Amino acid sequence: MGSSSPSHPETLSWIGDLTGHVQMVEQTLLPTEHVQLEVRTVPAMVDAIRRLAVRGAPAIGVAAGYGVVLGAAAAAREGSNVREAASAAIEALWVSRPTAVNLFWALDRMRGILAATENLEGEALAERLLEEALAIHESDRDTCRRIGAHGAPLLEDGATVLTHCNAGALATGGMGTALAPIYTAHAQGKRVDVFADETRPLLQGARITCWELQQAGVPVTLITDGMAARVMAEGRIQAVIVGSDRITRGGDVCNKIGTFGVALAARHHGVPFHVAAPLSTVDTELLEGKDIPIEERDPDEVGHGFGRRTAPEGVRIYNPAFDVTPRDLVTSIITEVGVIERPDVAGMEQALREGGRL
Amino acid sequence: MGSSSPSHPETLSWIGDLTGHVQMVEQTLLPTEHVQLEVRTVPAMVDAIRRLAVRGAPAIGVAAGYGVVLGAAAAAREGSNVREAASAAIEALWVSRPTAVNLFWALDRMRGILAATENLEGEALAERLLEEALAIHESDRDTCRRIGAHGAPLLEDGATVLTHCNAGALATGGMGTALAPIYTAHAQGKRVDVFADETRPLLQGARITCWELQQAGVPVTLITDGMAARVMAEGRIQAVIVGSDRITRGGDVCNKIGTFGVALAARHHGVPFHVAAPLSTVDTELLEGKDIPIEERDPDEVGHGFGRRTAPEGVRIYNPAFDVTPRDLVTSIITEVGVIERPDVAGMEQALREGGRL
Repeated sequence: MGSSSPSHPETLSWIGDLTGHVQMVEQTLLPTEHVQLEVRTVPAMVDAIRRLAVRGAPAIGVAAGYGVVLGAAAAAREGSNVREAASAAIEALWVSRPTAVNLFWALDRMRGILAATENLEGEALAERLLEEALAIHESDRDTCRRIGAHGAPLLEDGATVLTHCNAGALATGGMGTALAPIYTAHAQGKRVDVFADETRPLLQGARITCWELQQAGVPVTLITDGMAARVMAEGRIQAVIVGSDRITRGGDVCNKIGTFGVALAARHHGVPFHVAAPLSTVDTELLEGKDIPIEERDPDEVGHGFGRRTAPEGVRIYNPAFDVTPRDLVTSIITEVGVIERPDVAGMEQALREGGRL
Repeated sequence: MGSSSPSHPETLSWIGDLTGHVQMVEQTLLPTEHVQLEVRTVPAMVDAIRRLAVRGAPAIGVAAGYGVVLGAAAAAREGSNVREAASAAIEALWVSRPTAVNLFWALDRMRGILAATENLEGEALAERLLEEALAIHESDRDTCRRIGAHGAPLLEDGATVLTHCNAGALATGGMGTALAPIYTAHAQGKRVDVFADETRPLLQGARITCWELQQAGVPVTLITDGMAARVMAEGRIQAVIVGSDRITRGGDVCNKIGTFGVALAARHHGVPFHVAAPLSTVDTELLEGKDIPIEERDPDEVGHGFGRRTAPEGVRIYNPAFDVTPRDLVTSIITEVGVIERPDVAGMEQALREGGRL
């Protein structure tokens, strides 16, 4: 089922044959508990995606592919209509989260299989869907490796990289997007240090990025989100690398809330701001970032984090999960087909053609 | 002992005569518990300042003045040397926190009394010190009112103001610095809304700013620090007002960590960035922000906030408590003598002369 470097954790995998299930790291419990979650039904997968047991745009895509298989395989076992079950699974998974475009991209690939296999049904169709989901996963592993290879040359020996949220192994089916150049440079023998923003409200930087870098033996220092500008002013940062949940055809970058502020600080201090993402993150239908729908999440994530109230009862809370960094603040987008420098429509479209997405 | 508007809480007060004590809001327990702390000794005051039971540059100055009185009054009661006890108290309080210059300013005022009263001793000297500490407090109340009066015209009816950390009533002996223009505009009948950054790691925005604005009936919306740039991009913010812990003679502004990032976002979006602070916050000895000593606090504030671990054991953590916003990002500094627009050395020195500090 493909290889993965032992230095970083396996986010999720399909276990067994068509009668099998998905095993995934229960990311809401990190870093204090490292528990594997078994997902065996479509509603359980929708729930896992919605409550961020699995998160990160590429990993959500992989999980969604497997989710369709869970629906199809159950129908095959029960002797009910596999095609209808797979379609229903696609519909249920489609609305699990709104922003990451990889989710829709992966579900469209599964839907494409349904459209191209009118002669298949029952178990044979379910087997074909499992094959496609495994191919999505393997392709994601390969994409991560390529992003790592293209991005590593951007990091000099001794460089310190700041990252926001988690776009590491635990956000993908492979070695990560934003962290892939770091893992690759590290494996090449370069000394690379990382500063990780904790990333409020859900602390993916503190809980997940720090944890997986520690596991991989990469030196990491945790800061709060508000410290990024100060740390840059102190001259400690040579590059920023973040992931993305959706990139427009024009090169605007939607990513975890707080990314835009990091990009502004990087620009002020002359620090390169790189985005690492597979081309499946590009929404070819959208030209401008302002048109990206931004998920607004439960106010309690802000006002009642960490198991206790941190804000007075009844206070109004605004909790957008993502922001949009305009392309003119982006130094480069590192993709599986190469590095898009100073992204604009022309550069984006060239990469999309190279990657077979246009 | 002076008046204060009933709409915002009394941060600290001297209770009784020379045999009295200091009563203060135990701010570490907000917003879930509103408890009054009684402080009766110099070590207890040093401890209260150090662990942020009382915080905010002006309030620390007021607390330090009372702290000197606690030492002097105890000596007077015991019949020991009041002058020596007061000097020892000044020394102990001097090292309680390193960044807020109001602390040193208030202690220098108390030291000035010692120098100017060679003919006084015992209870009479202690009484004179209490008189000075009460004068520092009353002067702070008056300063807050003046800052409010000078700052309110900067806010149009219907404006929404973003603030960071807490520079409100609970950071001063009066109605606050950053929040004073808001309280004043509100009292004048203007509709003013506030967005409050939660302000990691210690959440003074969530815990204290939201609480005191709620108490005062001013509409407030809580966001995480990383959301400020996004909220500005959405056009929701008409002005930023923050406080300061130290301002250089050149106009660079040291304030709670995260302020610099807010200033960069404000500049990018063309939102005015105002600093509200008494002239006692100005360090007339320093020209440039890079020379301000930045307090580095316990890593557990970042990695073990809220009573549970939020980062893996053993991860390296960097926790600077303040940052410096360069003066070219500052639209104005609102002081008790008026508004310094586009601060530079000339503008700062003119205000300092008007305020009798040069």
